[in-house]
Amino acid sequence: MKLACPAPLWRHDRVVLGHGSGGKLSAELLRDVFLPALGNEILDRMEDQATCTLQGLGGGARIALTTDAFVVRPLFFPGGDIGKLAIHGTVNDLAVGGAEPKLITAAFILEEGLALADLERIARSMRVACDEAGVQLVAGDTKVVDRGKADGVFITTAGVGLVPAGRSLSISAARPGDRVLVSGTLGDHGIAIMSVREGLEFETVLQSDTASLAGLTRVMLSACPSIRCMRDPTRGGLASALNEMATASGVGIELREADIPLEAAVKSACELLGLDPLYVACEGRLVCAVPARDSERCLAAMREHPLGRRAADIGAVCEEHPGVVTAKTVVGGERVVSMLAGEQLPRIC
Amino acid sequence: MKLACPAPLWRHDRVVLGHGSGGKLSAELLRDVFLPALGNEILDRMEDQATCTLQGLGGGARIALTTDAFVVRPLFFPGGDIGKLAIHGTVNDLAVGGAEPKLITAAFILEEGLALADLERIARSMRVACDEAGVQLVAGDTKVVDRGKADGVFITTAGVGLVPAGRSLSISAARPGDRVLVSGTLGDHGIAIMSVREGLEFETVLQSDTASLAGLTRVMLSACPSIRCMRDPTRGGLASALNEMATASGVGIELREADIPLEAAVKSACELLGLDPLYVACEGRLVCAVPARDSERCLAAMREHPLGRRAADIGAVCEEHPGVVTAKTVVGGERVVSMLAGEQLPRIC
Repeated sequence: MKLACPAPLWRHDRVVLGHGSGGKLSAELLRDVFLPALGNEILDRMEDQATCTLQGLGGGARIALTTDAFVVRPLFFPGGDIGKLAIHGTVNDLAVGGAEPKLITAAFILEEGLALADLERIARSMRVACDEAGVQLVAGDTKVVDRGKADGVFITTAGVGLVPAGRSLSISAARPGDRVLVSGTLGDHGIAIMSVREGLEFETVLQSDTASLAGLTRVMLSACPSIRCMRDPTRGGLASALNEMATASGVGIELREADIPLEAAVKSACELLGLDPLYVACEGRLVCAVPARDSERCLAAMREHPLGRRAADIGAVCEEHPGVVTAKTVVGGERVVSMLAGEQLPRIC
Repeated sequence: MKLACPAPLWRHDRVVLGHGSGGKLSAELLRDVFLPALGNEILDRMEDQATCTLQGLGGGARIALTTDAFVVRPLFFPGGDIGKLAIHGTVNDLAVGGAEPKLITAAFILEEGLALADLERIARSMRVACDEAGVQLVAGDTKVVDRGKADGVFITTAGVGLVPAGRSLSISAARPGDRVLVSGTLGDHGIAIMSVREGLEFETVLQSDTASLAGLTRVMLSACPSIRCMRDPTRGGLASALNEMATASGVGIELREADIPLEAAVKSACELLGLDPLYVACEGRLVCAVPARDSERCLAAMREHPLGRRAADIGAVCEEHPGVVTAKTVVGGERVVSMLAGEQLPRIC
């Protein structure tokens, strides 16, 4: 099978929503605008977190550093809110890099007219999320912009974690033969947001999966130190996370669709809306590549953790078609799972 | 003389522009919303940067951590742009805490429709600012919101610095008898922004003072390790920085207006617009409290640095009226310089 990523169909001269999709246009923005101007050896690695040795800190200690902006709409949704999401998102970017999340900062951009009661609710929710994840919020900032120049509240968090000696997970470390594992059902967060926005109703209320992954990654890395790499499939979903892994590691990835865990409500909403669940965001799930000999042990450890009960082996890393992700469909065919070209669900995180 | 800060005149239930002023309303938001929900021993210190010991890093090493959101309008102004400002602001918050700035992260919130050429120009400007300040930008994020839900681009930066062993500057460390020094003219940044927005013209073009203070603080701390505390007088200007110092240190501060360095253009713009230059933001200046016996040496060191040529002794810390800042006016009277009550110049950083 010969597969290639299609060339971009047009060049943009202005920002479009797709530039924030986590898919192809996001990658183009990074490649054409940010990396030429700002690139360096650490940023160029394109991990979800930067691992840095600080000269002057004792014994070659390494810290991990990450940041994320949150612009989700609506601010409150089933299972969470923008504050919870802003803590979980940054904690998770540290955790999937194998770091212990420690410190967090939060900067708020408020729109004139925002109800202070909403802001209080968001702040309290952030505190609970910090306490659960074992991180301390140590610095913050607040700016206010005139009405109509923002949308309620935007929150940007940054996080610092500690990377234990000898640990080095990397998006470029997947090897042919590795198994690909996910920690639970996919797309719950994106569809929960979408259902509120579009007024969709399901028989059961679909909750966002937003959660701190720090506890889960801890038990996984303790049971299975050989894990090659982990990612949390947020914007752009599982498809984007695995495409990034395939490209960075120079390997192919083959999924089996039938084994990918999905909530019934997500499945039916995706059918109804014409969405592919592989592209829908999660905010409390991870995908990882693990050497085949250790994958059963890893899966068992995941399933013992409350956030990993529905963990599953969904495919394998292969030598063929490097940089390309494929999926065996339920009806027996095979399809290419490429990066998202445009924007599927704007502002879900 | 008996002085007291007036009680707030009203309680808000919605966010107003003044909540972002860096003055009284900002302090209220912090006291009533953020600290009750998010407070802890580090955040409660209200420094411009958090200094933290990380268990697991060798030898009691301490890192400093800070974050700032930037929403300045217009994006480009005489002497700078939002990108430069976003790097300088975070570098300076680390530097005035006595930390060596090392690592920086940047998260962008883009409005659909922003010209990519503008974004490229901003990113290039950030690179130059990073290189000048000796910091490495190691992590980033980009989100896009629909047209009309943001304003061009907002940038949030977070920074990590190293605090040398034995160094502890603090906003609560000023002592009666200390001299109060500023590194240069006040208000250049705020008036430069204002003049572009309002179409004011001066005989000479007034430039923003935006600059990295890391080099200046290095020579100051080397010449004068006894410096008690430093602040960069950004939002809310010199008045807010000194009020925070007076309150946190439990001391009074007495300024001499005649000795406060001002550009002629700033002076005339302030007269024209009815602004008090003590409340106008700088983005490349610092104010510090220094024991009297060392203040001449400190001033000499400042004046040898390009960013400190117009450094001046502008007053003293006193025992009287703790928490209150006063100024001897040019005509010989005395006035109270209180915290800004509302918003003077919105969106200047």
